[in-house]
Amino acid sequence: MRWSRYFLYTLKEEPAEAEAPSHRLLLKAGFIKQVSAGIYEILPAGWRVLRKIENVVRKEMDRSGAQELLLTVLNPAELWKETGRWETYGNELFRLKDRNGREYCLGPTHEEEITDLVRRTIHSYRQLPVILYQIQVKFRDEKRPRFGLIRGREFIMKDAYSFDTDEMSAMVSYETMKFAYDRIFRKLRLNVIMAEASVGQIGGKQSHEFIAFTDYGEAKVGYCENCGYAANAEIIPLSKPEPGEEEEEPLEKVHTPNVRTIEELANFLKVSPAKIMKAVLYIVDGKPVLVLIRGDREIDENKLEIVLGTENFRLAEDEEVKKLLGTEKGFIGIFNLPEGIRVLWDNSLYGVKNMVVALNEPDYHYVNANSGRDYEYGEFVDVAQVREGDPCPKCGNPLKVRTGLELGHIFLLGTRYSEPMKAYFADRDGSEKPIIMGCYGIGISRIMSAIVEQYHDDKGIKWPTPVAPFELEIICLNMSDQELVRVAEKLYIEAEEKGIEVIYDDREESAGFKFADADLVGFPYRIVVGKKVKEGKVEIQKRATGERWDVPIEEAVNKVKVMIEEDKK
Amino acid sequence: MRWSRYFLYTLKEEPAEAEAPSHRLLLKAGFIKQVSAGIYEILPAGWRVLRKIENVVRKEMDRSGAQELLLTVLNPAELWKETGRWETYGNELFRLKDRNGREYCLGPTHEEEITDLVRRTIHSYRQLPVILYQIQVKFRDEKRPRFGLIRGREFIMKDAYSFDTDEMSAMVSYETMKFAYDRIFRKLRLNVIMAEASVGQIGGKQSHEFIAFTDYGEAKVGYCENCGYAANAEIIPLSKPEPGEEEEEPLEKVHTPNVRTIEELANFLKVSPAKIMKAVLYIVDGKPVLVLIRGDREIDENKLEIVLGTENFRLAEDEEVKKLLGTEKGFIGIFNLPEGIRVLWDNSLYGVKNMVVALNEPDYHYVNANSGRDYEYGEFVDVAQVREGDPCPKCGNPLKVRTGLELGHIFLLGTRYSEPMKAYFADRDGSEKPIIMGCYGIGISRIMSAIVEQYHDDKGIKWPTPVAPFELEIICLNMSDQELVRVAEKLYIEAEEKGIEVIYDDREESAGFKFADADLVGFPYRIVVGKKVKEGKVEIQKRATGERWDVPIEEAVNKVKVMIEEDKK
Repeated sequence: MRWSRYFLYTLKEEPAEAEAPSHRLLLKAGFIKQVSAGIYEILPAGWRVLRKIENVVRKEMDRSGAQELLLTVLNPAELWKETGRWETYGNELFRLKDRNGREYCLGPTHEEEITDLVRRTIHSYRQLPVILYQIQVKFRDEKRPRFGLIRGREFIMKDAYSFDTDEMSAMVSYETMKFAYDRIFRKLRLNVIMAEASVGQIGGKQSHEFIAFTDYGEAKVGYCENCGYAANAEIIPLSKPEPGEEEEEPLEKVHTPNVRTIEELANFLKVSPAKIMKAVLYIVDGKPVLVLIRGDREIDENKLEIVLGTENFRLAEDEEVKKLLGTEKGFIGIFNLPEGIRVLWDNSLYGVKNMVVALNEPDYHYVNANSGRDYEYGEFVDVAQVREGDPCPKCGNPLKVRTGLELGHIFLLGTRYSEPMKAYFADRDGSEKPIIMGCYGIGISRIMSAIVEQYHDDKGIKWPTPVAPFELEIICLNMSDQELVRVAEKLYIEAEEKGIEVIYDDREESAGFKFADADLVGFPYRIVVGKKVKEGKVEIQKRATGERWDVPIEEAVNKVKVMIEEDKK
Repeated sequence: MRWSRYFLYTLKEEPAEAEAPSHRLLLKAGFIKQVSAGIYEILPAGWRVLRKIENVVRKEMDRSGAQELLLTVLNPAELWKETGRWETYGNELFRLKDRNGREYCLGPTHEEEITDLVRRTIHSYRQLPVILYQIQVKFRDEKRPRFGLIRGREFIMKDAYSFDTDEMSAMVSYETMKFAYDRIFRKLRLNVIMAEASVGQIGGKQSHEFIAFTDYGEAKVGYCENCGYAANAEIIPLSKPEPGEEEEEPLEKVHTPNVRTIEELANFLKVSPAKIMKAVLYIVDGKPVLVLIRGDREIDENKLEIVLGTENFRLAEDEEVKKLLGTEKGFIGIFNLPEGIRVLWDNSLYGVKNMVVALNEPDYHYVNANSGRDYEYGEFVDVAQVREGDPCPKCGNPLKVRTGLELGHIFLLGTRYSEPMKAYFADRDGSEKPIIMGCYGIGISRIMSAIVEQYHDDKGIKWPTPVAPFELEIICLNMSDQELVRVAEKLYIEAEEKGIEVIYDDREESAGFKFADADLVGFPYRIVVGKKVKEGKVEIQKRATGERWDVPIEEAVNKVKVMIEEDKK
C-alpha cells in the first residue's frame, strides 16, 4: 500500500476528549473516528487490526469445535419477555418499534435468540453437545460511554453458547472455552489474567473473566502469586480478622469540632484510621441501612449489592441523615441510634479494641470504645473493597491487586435460559430435560484498545506483529531524490512479493513528519531509505525496542521477513 | 466435519410460507431460519456460503483499489436531516431514540455517514480519488418483506463510495467498479446482466443495475441481442409507432352491455385489443389525471411516476369515477370529458386508426373513432410497460424481456450528497469544490438466494463449487458395516489432509435418507461408500450434472480434487 493513496490521516491536535491512552492514540493515529457518544467508525488501518483480531478468535473457536453462525441484530421483544430481561435489562437495551408497531431490541447479547433457535432445532440427546458462536455487532445504551472502544454503545463481540445434556458435559464445554480463550489472548500478545467473577445480569452458576492489566480499566483483580488464585476483587471474600490483644482503655467523650473525614479525625486524635469506626448511611429500597466499616477501608458497592439483594440503593442525602439520625455526615455512629435502622457490620471491625466511634451528636466522638463493654456487635457481613496485601482466600498469602479491562467473560449458565424458554431435550431414557447452557463472550473491538493500552509509549502505538495493520513500513526520507525513490520502490515491490504486509510512505513530507507518524501509527518494523543509500545501506528499525541496524539494501527485506516470522510464531 | 456433530438439520416438512424456490430450499436444507418477518438467522452451513461470497466480493474490491472500513449501524438523525432523507426515506427507515432522547436510524445505506467522514478528513485534491467500502448489516423496514433473503428487513450488504475531484475522474471510478462487479458475479458463477437503471431514491446522474435472471424477481430487464443494450424495463423508452395506413371507417356508436374489460370488449366486437383505447383514471396529488393507452399494453407506474413528478398517485375509486366522469370503470373514454381533467396519451396510441373508444356512458362504445376527425390528440407521454419484441431504443431490433433479481446497483451521484453536506475540497488552483461521488452496492445475503434460484432442481440445491458450504460429501451407506466405516473414515481423513472442504455423513440413518439430504443440501461432489467397496471401489457423484463414476478407493479423493480445482478456476 502506498501511503499517499491510503485513507490514513493522523491528527495534528491532541484529541481533547480522550482520557485513556488507547482512546487518544487510536483517534490521533487515524484508526477510529467518533460518530456519536460511544459510537465509532473503524477506519481502514483500524479495520485491518480488527480483522486480524477476528481471525485469531475465529481460528481458535473453530479449532475448539465451535460452529460459526450469524444471529440477528433485531431481536423480537417476545423472546426477551420470556426470560424477564425485557424489563430487567433496563435502559441499556436499545428498544424500537417497526412500521407495524411490533417491538424489538438491538441485541446486546444473544442468550434469548440462540436458546430460541436451539429449542426449535434440538430435541434429542444425540444432537448434543454443541457449541455455536458468532462475531457480530452488538448494542448497549451505556449510561457513560467512554474510553473510545473500551465502553462503547455499538461494538463488535464474539459470543459463543454451549449446549449440553448434563452438568458434567457442560463443564467440559466450559473448560474447552477456557483453553480456547487462553490461546486467543496469547496469540494476540495480551497480558491477561483469568479471574473468578460474578455472574451479574447474565446469571448462571459459575463465571470467569479474562482481564488485561491496564491503568485505565474498570475491573479490579486480586491475585495470589503463591497459589495462583485470581478473582475479580468484587467477589474476593474478606473474613473477620484475629481479634486484637490490646488492653481496653476507659471510654472518653472528646470534643471534635468540625472534624468530619476519617483523615481529619485520625490527625486530630493522632490515631490510626484502622482504629476509627466509619459509618455510612444508605437508603435501600426506601429504608435506611447503616453500614459500619473500619476507617482504613472502603465499601465495595458490588459486594454490598449482593448482601442487600437489590441494586436499588444509594447514599443518604444530608437531609435524610439529619432527619433519621439527628446528626450530620462525619458524626454518624452506633450510639444513640433510633429504632428500626438496620445495621451491617463489615468483617473488618471484628475484634478491634479501643475504637473511635461517633455518637450521632455533631462535634463529638467517643474514644476507646469497646465491644461488649460499650456496644454490642450486630450482623457481620463482607462489604469491604479488597486491597493489595489482603489475605488470599485460598492460601492466606498477601494478594496483589491491579486494575484491568475485562476482555472475555464466560458463564456456566445451567438452566437460567433453557428452563424459562423451555429448551428441553429427550434424554437416553426418554425423559424430558432442560439443556444445560454456557455462554462465552469476547469484546473484539475492545481488544484493539487493550492492545494499545499494553503496547504504547509517549510517541505512539507499538503494535505486536500478529495484529499490526501493516508489518513493515518503508520510509523514503526524500521524495525528490531520485536515487532514494528508486531504492524505496524496489524494496516496496520486493516486500510485497515476499508476502510481507507493507506500507510505503511515499508522501511528499519531511523526514521529521514521517518519523513522527511512523512512531504514532506504530508499524512493528521500518526500513528507512536515506543518505546511507550512497554506501549501499538502509536502516531497519524495530518499533517495539527502538533497535536499529544498518544493513545492505539487498539484505534488508529478508532480514525483516525473518524477524516478522519469528514474531508471529 | 462430521455431519453427526454438525448443526445442519434439514426439514421434513415443506416450508409452507415460502413462494420462491430459493426461500423454500434455504429453509428446508437448514441454511437459514426465520426470527421475524424479513429477519433471518444464518445457520452454520449458510454462514459458510455467505463467508465465501463475502470473500469473493472483498477480494475483487481490494483488487480494484477500494479500501475497507466499517461504518456504524446507528446513524445520528442530524446527518440524515442534512440531506433531507430523514423525512423522504419514509417508513422504510427504522428510527429509535437513545436513553437521552437523541434520535438515530439504523443505516439502510450510508451516503450520509461516509460523506460526513470524508468532509471531516479530506480537504485537498491530493487526497483524491479514493474508494471506500464496507461489508455490513443493513436495515430497511420493508412494507412487504418476502422471498427469504431476497427482500429482508435485516441483511448484509457491501457498499462502496467513490470520491473524485471531477466528473471525468468519477467516471473512471465508476468504470472501475463496473469491472469489479463483473468479475465478482463471474466468480460467483451467477448469470447476471448489467442494465441501465433509474437513480430512484438514492439520486444522482447515472446508474446501472446488475440483475440475475430468475423466475422470482422484482426487476424486469429488456435487452437486445443485436447491439448489447440492456436496461431496467422501467426506463426503456417507447416512442410513437409509425402511423397505420388503413382507410378511416365511419364512426359508429355500439351497445356493449356489461362489457368491461379489454378482453371482453375485443371478443364482443371481434377486434384486436390493439384497436381499443384503454383509459385509466388516476388521482394525482388529489387531482384527476386520465391516462390513455392502447388496449394491448399496460401502464408502467414507474414510468408514470417520472412523468407525474410525484409518487403520490393512485388509481381512482369507483365512486370517484362516478362522481368525476359520470360513468363506471370499463366505460371511461375521451368523449364527453368534463373540463379540468388532465389527459395523458401514451405513445402507443399514436396513429392508430379506427379505434374502439368509450364515451363515459355506461354500456356504449364508439367504434372506428379516428384522430383529427372524431377527437384531437393531446399531450403524448411514454408510460407503457416494455414487453418482449418492443424495439431496442439503440438499434431498433426486437428486445428480449426477462425478470430477475437486482444484486448490484451502482450510481454516479455527482454532488447529490457532497453539496448539501458541504463536502468540499481545495482544488489545485485553491478553489473550493464539492467532491464528486459515486456509490456502489451489492446485496451479499441476497446473492445467496440468487445462486440458489439459478442452481437448483426438484430435489434441492446444486451449489457451484466456489460458494458451496462444503466441496465434498462422503456418504457411508451403512454405519453398522465396519468395513464401509473404515473406508469412509480413511477417505474423510485423506480429503481433509488434501485441503478439500469435506463433510462426512456418519449419521445413523438409512441410505435413502442420506441421498435425499445430499440432493437437498447440494454439495457439489459426493463419494458414496457402499457395497462396491468389496470390489475395491467407491462411487463419485457430481450434483450439478448427475454424472457418476465408479473409481478405485485409493484414486477417489484425487479425482475429486482435480474436478474441484477445475471448477474453482
